[in-house]
Parts: sequence; structure tokens; C-alpha cells
Amino acid sequence: MAEKIQIFDTTLRDGEQVPGCKLNTQQKLELAEALESLGVDVIEAGFPISSPGDFQSVYQIAEIIKHSTVCGLSRSVEKDIITAAEALQPARSPRIHTGIGTSDVHIKYKFNSTPEKIIERAVAAVRLAKKFVYDVEFYAEDAGRTENEFLAKVCTEVVKAGATVLNIPDTTGYCLPDEYGDKIRYLKENVKGIDKAILSSHCHNDLGLATANSIAAIRNGARQIECTINGIGERAGNTSLEEVVMIIKQRKHLGFFTNIHSKMLTEMSHMVSDRMGIPVQPNKAIVGANAFAHSSGIHQDGVIKHRENYEIIDPHEVGVNESAIILTARSGRAALAYRYRNLDIELGKEQLDILYKNFLELADQKKEIVAEDLLRLYDEHIVKKHKAVV
Amino acid sequence: MAEKIQIFDTTLRDGEQVPGCKLNTQQKLELAEALESLGVDVIEAGFPISSPGDFQSVYQIAEIIKHSTVCGLSRSVEKDIITAAEALQPARSPRIHTGIGTSDVHIKYKFNSTPEKIIERAVAAVRLAKKFVYDVEFYAEDAGRTENEFLAKVCTEVVKAGATVLNIPDTTGYCLPDEYGDKIRYLKENVKGIDKAILSSHCHNDLGLATANSIAAIRNGARQIECTINGIGERAGNTSLEEVVMIIKQRKHLGFFTNIHSKMLTEMSHMVSDRMGIPVQPNKAIVGANAFAHSSGIHQDGVIKHRENYEIIDPHEVGVNESAIILTARSGRAALAYRYRNLDIELGKEQLDILYKNFLELADQKKEIVAEDLLRLYDEHIVKKHKAVV
Repeated sequence: MAEKIQIFDTTLRDGEQVPGCKLNTQQKLELAEALESLGVDVIEAGFPISSPGDFQSVYQIAEIIKHSTVCGLSRSVEKDIITAAEALQPARSPRIHTGIGTSDVHIKYKFNSTPEKIIERAVAAVRLAKKFVYDVEFYAEDAGRTENEFLAKVCTEVVKAGATVLNIPDTTGYCLPDEYGDKIRYLKENVKGIDKAILSSHCHNDLGLATANSIAAIRNGARQIECTINGIGERAGNTSLEEVVMIIKQRKHLGFFTNIHSKMLTEMSHMVSDRMGIPVQPNKAIVGANAFAHSSGIHQDGVIKHRENYEIIDPHEVGVNESAIILTARSGRAALAYRYRNLDIELGKEQLDILYKNFLELADQKKEIVAEDLLRLYDEHIVKKHKAVV
Repeated sequence: MAEKIQIFDTTLRDGEQVPGCKLNTQQKLELAEALESLGVDVIEAGFPISSPGDFQSVYQIAEIIKHSTVCGLSRSVEKDIITAAEALQPARSPRIHTGIGTSDVHIKYKFNSTPEKIIERAVAAVRLAKKFVYDVEFYAEDAGRTENEFLAKVCTEVVKAGATVLNIPDTTGYCLPDEYGDKIRYLKENVKGIDKAILSSHCHNDLGLATANSIAAIRNGARQIECTINGIGERAGNTSLEEVVMIIKQRKHLGFFTNIHSKMLTEMSHMVSDRMGIPVQPNKAIVGANAFAHSSGIHQDGVIKHRENYEIIDPHEVGVNESAIILTARSGRAALAYRYRNLDIELGKEQLDILYKNFLELADQKKEIVAEDLLRLYDEHIVKKHKAVV
């Protein structure tokens, strides 16, 4: 039996922190509704104490969301937690997300505190949040650089105080997959009362490892992944929702499933990119413009013969109509014939040889060859020559 | 003693295949020279048989490169290999890269062949290439989906035929890190004569795992990583050079080093993006515009107190001048005071409170607050009020 992985989307909170992001409240509501339709289990809607505008956004999202849990962020600070509770007041299924830094570097340089006092603040924060909502997620900030033994101690205490979810963030994107997986396994084995809470992965992509780390986490006991559409987020961003969802869907031997409707992923990616005003690079996995585009001759020939030669995901599964065969100077005869066939022109071997030679010359200059070029080449080198002979 | 990992850059071959790429020969020469300065061990300059323009580029790159090995791609086809040899003729250190698909799906649907015939073609290709150059790299295309036992058999035969490098491509970006690492380890343990060749990783990012897979490969015996600047390449692209290089540099316990001058990485990324006409998304790891930018209050406060609270890489190490503190509605008092301090304005506690309230109102509307806004706010709410009182 496959086990469910909860998808915790933080596009509107950790994603929204990205410099240059331009979302107004109306756009946030639109994205929240789209995320609910996509099937995310939890929508982190914002950080209510941070500004009056963000408070309003969380409040209004809490009003309109019907099925997903709506979550608000807070530090382990009384006024943060009270404000988050107020913003979440209309939610059908509210969650307060609270926490504190637990690594040596955070305890020393950020809080100028001691490990014991950090635990006290963590427990007090969870207890306060529990007065307002049942569902309290605790984050141990910079868990990636926190010593496992101390981390397990913090987790044990906050579970005792009522935390339902334990978020283990690799805040600085420091961990390698085996390290992050081992950390999750250690907690699964050493936190007392761990059966009362679920472990959650929250990875950053500073070294390009967020997706691999999240998958390592679920293979070692985590049952929630925190992620964003397009992997958007501060610095190098967060784990990409579309990547972890498609790995789970594609590699069934892992034994997991999510509730995400994958056919909506491409549309969702475009919507987030458009509303935030932040482009997605063409070679972005799953949702980039080129994710299913082939331009080299070897690949095109292979894909035309049999799609699975070069694609492990059927583009339809993520809402893309078809694989693209792009004609460039790296393309071969098979791709050229294929594109002519799409224009209802069936070429004989000799015609193909003539056109391919002329096509390559043009492609070396022009780079991408489009349908108009093909028709012009056909007219110049086949039709006109034929007429001249006749 | 740390072991050296060779960096095989294929920006000009696998990267250049990206749809929309606009590089002329002059630009390719400029990039090849920059790659040599960056310190890459091997420059894959192109696929000479594919077009007359590409042949010319490889030939001219072979003429100007002094220290790096210059490599040309070919299929296991006689005219491909002869053409590659001709294009590489001026190179001081030439390498022919040849190979063939080895997975069941490729053998059946692409070549309509049998495993035995594939081995024969592979061996013949390596033997032919060896007539022209000493350094012959063999690629087992779609090795990611090739059964390990057959793969080891192919590798054993091509090493016997003289291959110096064994490229094990995860052509379709299918593997998880543990699978890809296990494959490399299996080959290291089961290919006869493996001490005469080095294993090379070549990963694609279709599931967002190319970087993690490459690191898994070197931890299991590979000693060369094939990669591109910005992770550019067909579909979701190749392994990002900047990511694997910085992981190796940053996580010394892995026991590896490369010859890459990391301070050139940001400039190199800009150059490739500019010449190819393909943007880098702001949240791209290491080289994205936001890779070292902080906009949330919690992070800004932490970074201002102590950079290592939120950064694991010193921006100077990759050629970025400093971490950016971006002011948005998610910013806190610490960041506001910091940015005023950079403008030579030292605020008292009361002044900061007044300005912070007005700053948040403006930021909820305007998103990013720049220096001009700060000066205007200061003028309106501090200077003018003060004058009014006086």
C-alpha cells in the first residue's frame, strides 16, 4: 500500500518573500484558490505579524479556502502567535506555524541565548498556539546545521506540548541528501512520542539539492514536504512542488502518492510566474518551456521513433499538449521529414537530401527554423526546380 | 588527501542544443577561451558531423585552446568519427567522444538491433577513434535505464578496445541519487580493466536531480563530471557546473577538489546567458540574481548580525560583491536601520519606530523599497516634522 505524502505549499509565504515579487491581496486569493484546486493539503498563506497587508491576505484566504488547511507563520513571540491566530480565525482548518532557531550559530549569534532557554521559548510558543488551534506545526530553524541529539530533545519537548507537525528546515540549503535523510531517520527513531506528530521536510536550494533532500526525507520517515511552485523563494528558493510531485508519481517503487492533480502543474506554474512577475527559465525541470522540447538530431530521431527513448514523463501528465521537435543545425533528416509531414508534405529520399543540405546552411545562420522557412525552402528547391524542368 | 574531480564542460555541445540558443562561431570561441580561464579540464566543443558551422567551430576552438582537452562528439558511425578527428586535428590535447545507446528501449526502438550487435558497433567505434587520438571517451547512451550487468559488459569491451573514459549518461534524467550511485559503484567493481579508464557522470535534470546524482556518482567512484554553465541543455538541461563545483568546494568532508576558479562563476554565468540569449531565473542556485539576496525580516536580521546565520557560501567566493538586503513588507526593523545606516543616517529608537510604520504601509503597496523611497520617508516623517516642531 502506497503511503500519502502531504504537500505543504508555501508559495504565498516563503515564495512571496522573493525580492521583486509583486503580488497584491487579490492575486494572492486567486493563487490560493488555484492551489486548493491543484490539491495541496496545506496552504501557508503568509506571516500575519509582518505587515497589515499580509495580515489581510491571510485573513481573506482563510475565509475562502474550503478543504485545504490554511497556515500562518509566527516566530516564538507572543504577539506573533496571537496575530497569526487572529488572521486564521475564519479558517475551517487552521494551522499555526511557530518555531525558533536551534543551531549553535543561530542560538549564539541570532538570539544570544542558551540551548535550555531556546527549548523553554519553543515549548511556550507551542503551548500558546495550542490555546487557539489544535493543529500546531513547530519549525526548528536551521535544523540542517543543528546537532541531532539537541534537535531530538527540542522535538520531544514540543511534541509533549502538543505540536502536531515537526518541520525540520534545512534553512541555509546546507545538507547533502544522505545527511538530511539520516537526520530525519534519527528523529523518527529518537523523538519520544513521535507517533503523535508527523515529520516535515523544508529544504532550500542553495546547492541545487532541495529536491533530492526532500525525497531523502520521505524515504526516511517524513510524511510532509514543504515546497513552492517553480521552486520560488528567498535566495536560491525552496523545493519545487512540481519536481517532488512528479518524482513520487513517476517512481512508484518509492511507495508514495500525493493528492496533486498533475495535469494542472504547467498552468499553475505559468500563473505563479505571471502574477509574481518572475520568469521561469526555459530549462526548468517539469514546467520550463523546453522541458519537453527536443532539438538535437539524435534525440529527435529517437523521440519520433518512440517517445520513451528520450522522455520519462508523458507531457500530457503535466498539462503539456505534446513534445516539441525544434529544428536547428543540430537536427537530422528524421526531424526534418517529420516536420514536413506535419505540414502535409511527404518527401521522397532525393527531395529530403536536397532540402536537408539547404536546411543546414540556413540553420547555421538563423538558428531556429520555423514552418515558414520550411515552406520557403520547399518552394525554392523543389517546386521551382520542378517547374524549371517541366 | 583530497582527490581531483575532472570538470568536463559541455556548454558548447549539449548546452548549445537548447532550443532558442543563438551562438555564432565567434561567440563560441569567446566562450571556449573563458571556459579555459575558468579552469575546466575538458571542453566539449561540438558535434562536428552535425553541420558545417559546427565543424568550423570545433576546428577553430581546437586551434586556440592551450591547456584544456578539446572534445568532439560522434555517434558510433564511421563518418561521424572521421569528421570529429578532422575537426580536432589542430588540438593540443584532443579527445573523441563516441558511443551508442545501450538500454533495452534504445536497442529495440532506436536501433532495431540486438545487444551483441550493439557491443560490436561500440568496440568498432572506439577502435576507429583510437586510430586518430589516444584519448577516447565512450558514452553508453541511456545508461541510466540500462541493466547493470549488460552495461558492465559493454564497458569491459570498450576499455579493452582502448577507451580512456567511460561516460555513463542518465540521458533521460530518470535516476534517483542512490540508483545512479549504485550503478557507478557496480561498474567500478565489475568492469574488467577499470583501472585503465575513469568513470564519468553525465546527468540530466528532468526530475531536478542532476546535481544530486552527479555528487552520488563521485562518491561511488566517478572522477569526471559532465556539466554546463547555468545547467543549460536540452529539455530540463544538464548538471549545473556551478552547483557541483561549489558543493565539492563547500563540503570538504567529501574529499574532493576541482581546478575551477570559483570567483569567475558569476561572470561566466552572465556571459553564457547573454551570448546564448537565454535568461537565468533569479532563484537559480549559486548564480541567480537572488542567490545572495535576503528580503524577509527574520533572515535579514540574522544576516546583519552574522552572515553565516543564513549563508553557507561567502558571495565573494563566486564573484558576487556582497549579500543584498532587499527591503519589502516582509522586512523588519533591523534591515530598515541597516539600510539607513548605509545611507549614513543613524536612527534613534523612536525615529525607527515612526519610519518602520510608514515604511510598511508603503511596502504593502509598492513591494520593493529603494534608497530614494527611504530618503523621501526620512524627509517627510523626520526632517519635516522636526522643522514643524522647531
